[in-house]
Amino acid sequence: MSGETNRLVALADEVTGKDHYPTEREIDVLLATGEQTTIALTAMAINAMGGNAVSLTGAQAGIETDGVHTKARISNITPNEVHRLLDEGNIVILAGFQGKTSDGKITTLGRGGSDLTAIAMAAAVDAELCQIFTDVDGVYTCDPRVVKDARKLGEISYDELLEMASSGTKVMQSRSVEFAKKFGVPFEVRSSLNQNSGTLVKEETMSMESVVIRGVSLERDQAKVTITGVKDHPGSASMIFGALAQADLIIDMIVQNVSKTGITDISFTLHKSDLEKAESALENVRTKLGDDIELESESRIAKLSVVGIGMRSHSGVAAEMFAALSDAGVNIQMISTSEIKVTVTVAENEIDAAAQAVHDKFGLGTA
Amino acid sequence: MSGETNRLVALADEVTGKDHYPTEREIDVLLATGEQTTIALTAMAINAMGGNAVSLTGAQAGIETDGVHTKARISNITPNEVHRLLDEGNIVILAGFQGKTSDGKITTLGRGGSDLTAIAMAAAVDAELCQIFTDVDGVYTCDPRVVKDARKLGEISYDELLEMASSGTKVMQSRSVEFAKKFGVPFEVRSSLNQNSGTLVKEETMSMESVVIRGVSLERDQAKVTITGVKDHPGSASMIFGALAQADLIIDMIVQNVSKTGITDISFTLHKSDLEKAESALENVRTKLGDDIELESESRIAKLSVVGIGMRSHSGVAAEMFAALSDAGVNIQMISTSEIKVTVTVAENEIDAAAQAVHDKFGLGTA
Repeated sequence: MSGETNRLVALADEVTGKDHYPTEREIDVLLATGEQTTIALTAMAINAMGGNAVSLTGAQAGIETDGVHTKARISNITPNEVHRLLDEGNIVILAGFQGKTSDGKITTLGRGGSDLTAIAMAAAVDAELCQIFTDVDGVYTCDPRVVKDARKLGEISYDELLEMASSGTKVMQSRSVEFAKKFGVPFEVRSSLNQNSGTLVKEETMSMESVVIRGVSLERDQAKVTITGVKDHPGSASMIFGALAQADLIIDMIVQNVSKTGITDISFTLHKSDLEKAESALENVRTKLGDDIELESESRIAKLSVVGIGMRSHSGVAAEMFAALSDAGVNIQMISTSEIKVTVTVAENEIDAAAQAVHDKFGLGTA
Repeated sequence: MSGETNRLVALADEVTGKDHYPTEREIDVLLATGEQTTIALTAMAINAMGGNAVSLTGAQAGIETDGVHTKARISNITPNEVHRLLDEGNIVILAGFQGKTSDGKITTLGRGGSDLTAIAMAAAVDAELCQIFTDVDGVYTCDPRVVKDARKLGEISYDELLEMASSGTKVMQSRSVEFAKKFGVPFEVRSSLNQNSGTLVKEETMSMESVVIRGVSLERDQAKVTITGVKDHPGSASMIFGALAQADLIIDMIVQNVSKTGITDISFTLHKSDLEKAESALENVRTKLGDDIELESESRIAKLSVVGIGMRSHSGVAAEMFAALSDAGVNIQMISTSEIKVTVTVAENEIDAAAQAVHDKFGLGTA
């Protein structure tokens, strides 16, 4: 059923014409048919193989959402019907990505909504395990296309997966992982194309902490903007990032050094495709920031992170990482750290070598 | 969206394989998406033109049905949501052909279910008028492709339309007309391709009775079977039509003459495509019917009917019809009458001339 959503959106654009946007309420009614088609066909296919499957739409399964059409949030799940059908011995095929409001309107959950449905329903029925079938075998210590000896992880904590996702390892939307963390739903990311076991994502355990670094993430197509000569007084940062937020730009790393002279530099990264918009947004507030302001930008950078909950109790992770990069002749541009992650930016053409060097340094390639 | 149902059915066949039938429960989940797609697109289109439209699925509109999947019957309508949306000033776009069971399963209404939904909802909200938009301008005194001066009727009673439908005038499924009659819903059949007023279908009035004949219906592709030498005792007819019913054959006219000798002839008509099946069904019971049984069949016949509630109080309608046919040199094969209809069968190649002659005789072509 690949391409079904695009087909439906094209139909909507066609009937609406180019001078109008389709009504969001009706977009949801329309898009919900995609998954409804899929669940009916899936149930039929299982029944034809001798199974006993029944399908349920989001509304039928008791998935209640708020009323924000096209990106609704799940507010409540009443899984009575799911329980009843399971108790009767059925395989329940549930439509993802959709729900209904308390007054019965059809809604869709927006980006990542299918995984989210699976995890939310697993939480609601107190499932032992939720399996997410996708096009990758699981979560790897690093992108196997970059680091040849990258290893599939047997398990990883929610926080580690979240940090890896935020630094480029796109296995699942953060939204679903956060939900799973909040409700303590263990889930396995595995491939729908083979029978290999995947990666189990769950709450951290003592044994997880003995592994210092879980993996290395990398993200290309980043850009960096540095604003020099900013007066170091309250309101400067707010003015800069307020202007960027108003332009609907998603900013990633923000780095500001301690100021000694009353003048400071602020750098931030964002996706390369947003760079021009950011530059013009900043031009608009330039005069308010002061006369000595200078803007520098650089669009050929990449981000590299090491992630691991074990680093909380291990000192020297950053130092080891920087040493590995130095040995590999890779220059570090920016540094940012969180409790379980160290991120640096490097020149884009050095990212592969940087990833391999750091992966080697922490011994991630050996089982 | 023409062809959508066929597309969905093909998908179902594909996933199910040729050795199995798709589960009927899931067929309904699948087919219901067709109308859901259409209502969303229709509402979007109206909104883009500046209207204020909202769509409702059958379930959302409170259309409750029994649980007979793929041919459910409406059991109840709770139109609270429809009323609420109408009171707010919305144009409500309702999915036809579908509903839900009292325990929330998605159902479809089967043949004629879209018209039926419109009429049932009109009854539930006590609408002043229900308009059925179709590909014909309304109900005509006869098929305009056959009788050039056929005239569009301004109004017609439910019973007249039912009798015309049963004798070949396919404007709407009888199921919908019967429902409208039962609940007294007036409806107009009109074209979606032009702005012409259509034909109003409603309960009969005094003024309707002053018109003796409303129209002439004709039906081609009929076949006739005559069984001669049938013993005229209880059980013969039951044996014949029991065998035909068991073969799932729909029998139309049945004619049996008064018997004087203890032996009678029974004739019936059916669609030409069912003739072979009927013949073999009768062969199976032939010996039980008696030794002198003979079967004759004829597949080149057509049916012609005159319909009008006025004929209840006017004698001589049949005589006038027969005279018209005689004048036109058309031989009458079988005759059957109901309270407001006289039907004859004639040779198929004479049906057009027969229709014109009868249409002329009753002056239907003049306004």
